[in-house]
Amino acid sequence: MPKEGVSIQVIRRLPRYYRYLSELEAQGVEKISSTKLASVMSSTASQIRQDLNCFGGFGQQGYGYSVAGLREEIGKILGLDRPHNTILIGAGNLGRAIATHLNFEKLGFKLTAIFEKDERLIGTTLRGITVLPDEEIEQYIKENKIDTAILTMPKEAVENLIDKLYHCGIRSYWNFSHYDIAKKYEDVVVENVHLSDSLMTLRYMMNQP
Amino acid sequence: MPKEGVSIQVIRRLPRYYRYLSELEAQGVEKISSTKLASVMSSTASQIRQDLNCFGGFGQQGYGYSVAGLREEIGKILGLDRPHNTILIGAGNLGRAIATHLNFEKLGFKLTAIFEKDERLIGTTLRGITVLPDEEIEQYIKENKIDTAILTMPKEAVENLIDKLYHCGIRSYWNFSHYDIAKKYEDVVVENVHLSDSLMTLRYMMNQP
Repeated sequence: MPKEGVSIQVIRRLPRYYRYLSELEAQGVEKISSTKLASVMSSTASQIRQDLNCFGGFGQQGYGYSVAGLREEIGKILGLDRPHNTILIGAGNLGRAIATHLNFEKLGFKLTAIFEKDERLIGTTLRGITVLPDEEIEQYIKENKIDTAILTMPKEAVENLIDKLYHCGIRSYWNFSHYDIAKKYEDVVVENVHLSDSLMTLRYMMNQP
Repeated sequence: MPKEGVSIQVIRRLPRYYRYLSELEAQGVEKISSTKLASVMSSTASQIRQDLNCFGGFGQQGYGYSVAGLREEIGKILGLDRPHNTILIGAGNLGRAIATHLNFEKLGFKLTAIFEKDERLIGTTLRGITVLPDEEIEQYIKENKIDTAILTMPKEAVENLIDKLYHCGIRSYWNFSHYDIAKKYEDVVVENVHLSDSLMTLRYMMNQP
């Protein structure tokens, strides 16, 4: 069980542990020391031990970590074993990339529907899912158990739609737009992906000696 | 001029300042106090003053910040006024989304070429740029002044290509794959975008009370 007040920095490292452990498991590695895991992940053994201690440890002195066991434990902490139904809104280039690129089921979500306002895209199929018109969002959410939305539309489109989504009960958002959802509604969980901020950060780092 | 040792947290906030100031400028706002800017950005006035002081200030006591002036200064700190030539490798769904979604010129880069190994995509046009075969990457980099590559291929493809890119002189990478470039080469600048980590983080946050 996670202890109270685990820092966001530690939490953001958990998916990375999960990812590396999944790879090690796929390679047939059964157990690993914190030193070896640190080397694989370009981290330090003490960082790894500290991070995992936030969730109660898992290692055995002199043995190291069971790769499969630790992967499973971290998966449970992340909640990957209990997938939530999610809808994707926006089937343009970015939406298509997101829909086809990610293995939602392994990441704690089940993508059940895709919505779009552009008539040319409605009726097309993505990941075996037929793209529906935006007008059907409200009814769909009400009739299905949906609590998460992935937003790949521009800021203005999110601004226009957010009240409806919130009032239908959507409380968690994977947000690719620059619209600040958490500012409008306090009782929501939002993970923002600001691609342009990331690119500007790269440009900044290129200046540094 | 940035002072020595500005933390990565502060640096990661700079693009966000730039983005909000650009919006305020577009709305015709000429000057703004740190308190008002904090309110717009869901930040605090003291955080903003502290952050900007890392780069020498810019505000005037009792006047606040000039929106256009501060945007321009932050743009210079980020290096947006000196765009670098970049190539995109991978014209699949993710590459297409990246190529069409972002305004590279405003983000400090100039996208000059796109490469792909899938023959069905070679010769198609993205953002007015004809997609070229992977085999031409080396020659293209040598004949043009390219120092940055955007990688939207899978991990294995990056693993196979990275030595060639490095030896052609590419030293900065916007990396969407899970391949750890900085582990292989120390004298490179890498900004990783791990979409699956972001989605897992959202799933974790949904568990929290």
